[in-house]
Amino acid sequence: MTSGTDKTKTSATSNAPAIILVDPQMGENIGAAARAMLNCGLTDLRLVNPRDGWPNERANAMSVGALEKMPDVKVYKTLKDALAEFHYVYATSARLRELEKPVMTAHEAVTDMKSRTNNNQNTAILFGAERTGLTNDDVALADYLINIPLNPSFSSLNLGQAVLLLAYEWSQTDETFKPASVPTAPATHAELQGLLDRLMNELDDHNFFRSVEVKPHMVRNLTTTLTRAGMTEQEIATFHGMISALTGKKTPRTNK
Amino acid sequence: MTSGTDKTKTSATSNAPAIILVDPQMGENIGAAARAMLNCGLTDLRLVNPRDGWPNERANAMSVGALEKMPDVKVYKTLKDALAEFHYVYATSARLRELEKPVMTAHEAVTDMKSRTNNNQNTAILFGAERTGLTNDDVALADYLINIPLNPSFSSLNLGQAVLLLAYEWSQTDETFKPASVPTAPATHAELQGLLDRLMNELDDHNFFRSVEVKPHMVRNLTTTLTRAGMTEQEIATFHGMISALTGKKTPRTNK
Repeated sequence: MTSGTDKTKTSATSNAPAIILVDPQMGENIGAAARAMLNCGLTDLRLVNPRDGWPNERANAMSVGALEKMPDVKVYKTLKDALAEFHYVYATSARLRELEKPVMTAHEAVTDMKSRTNNNQNTAILFGAERTGLTNDDVALADYLINIPLNPSFSSLNLGQAVLLLAYEWSQTDETFKPASVPTAPATHAELQGLLDRLMNELDDHNFFRSVEVKPHMVRNLTTTLTRAGMTEQEIATFHGMISALTGKKTPRTNK
Repeated sequence: MTSGTDKTKTSATSNAPAIILVDPQMGENIGAAARAMLNCGLTDLRLVNPRDGWPNERANAMSVGALEKMPDVKVYKTLKDALAEFHYVYATSARLRELEKPVMTAHEAVTDMKSRTNNNQNTAILFGAERTGLTNDDVALADYLINIPLNPSFSSLNLGQAVLLLAYEWSQTDETFKPASVPTAPATHAELQGLLDRLMNELDDHNFFRSVEVKPHMVRNLTTTLTRAGMTEQEIATFHGMISALTGKKTPRTNK
């Protein structure tokens, strides 16, 4: 029931949304949800009335270590208890409701959560039980509805997958989640021009340009192709090597 | 090997990206990928060298019917064979590569795919084997790298989940995937004003406003609260009913 103080545990992102699973049935799905959360930097998982109790060995196995790294999961008997400390609550729902609640896409919802968490407001996202989803009574307690538009003729989303989509959308608002970039060593235009000049000279020597009339056009096309490739220093050197191999002439020093 | 002509099958979205799983091992993951695809409206699944052959009973079970509804999965011996008909190929990768390829986020990649498919160019997204991912030789055949930024200390994403994230991002570019909206019957401001007027009169009669000085401030606050609630006709009627119950006076006809 208490937050973990174990030093091996990941500390929660300040004020990131909590994920609350209401009446979850299968431990495997709780574990998959935990894994998806930690993948995306979320660590505050809460359960309301888990069918098979807590802790759950199947959840641990399916989380592939995520539950060990996250703060202890908090467990509540009722959704009202679980919501006590939150300022804004978002209920996920696959289907239309007769309840009048503002409906958001997942992207709109995390954008809203981001601005609220920046103002130190606590937010939580609710997910219902497998198959049945949240009850209307559960949804009535929430401030907003999140509807993930899916293929209307095939919309059954696994609980772990639903958590993943929201956690992923949240991670996209986090500036520390930037794609990995490859350290590149792009060639300068002088290096590219050296290659182009050598290539055109060799092609001239080997009678590649059939006539004086077509040569400017062909030079322009070859220049365009090789410029578009955005070559690196290493790739320019490889092309010089190819020309040397095909012509039997070493790469001139000035072009290296 | 051929596209299905069975009338029960879902027809592919014209030119939507194909999903290609390279060297997939577990049938369960192929089934989960198919389910995630169909959830998001994608139907063109291709396999390169599936470890346990094809078809696969575990894949069928895990797809929860998706594989039956989709066109037949195409199976290839090599990635080169599988790529033959595509104009642009995007390789997913969890880690940095030494290969010089343009790196995109999932969102950037589907935006790029969308503009290409609008120009009738065929696109495909590659996913590698569980655990090992795509080989560098596989990645070399792709035009672009897709990197999904995840928690660096816990980034292992299940194959089905990885397919879901890309398929979901694709679905977000599809205008037919709009969130369900609730048919609402919002009250007019005249209806709201009728409720406010009646409420203020009753509060006045019951000596709620302690002094003439504070009354305008309290009226303004109550007006703000009830206006912000964005009430429907039905909710206005319910509030009139509440006032009737608390005061013992019927709702006046003019306020109905």
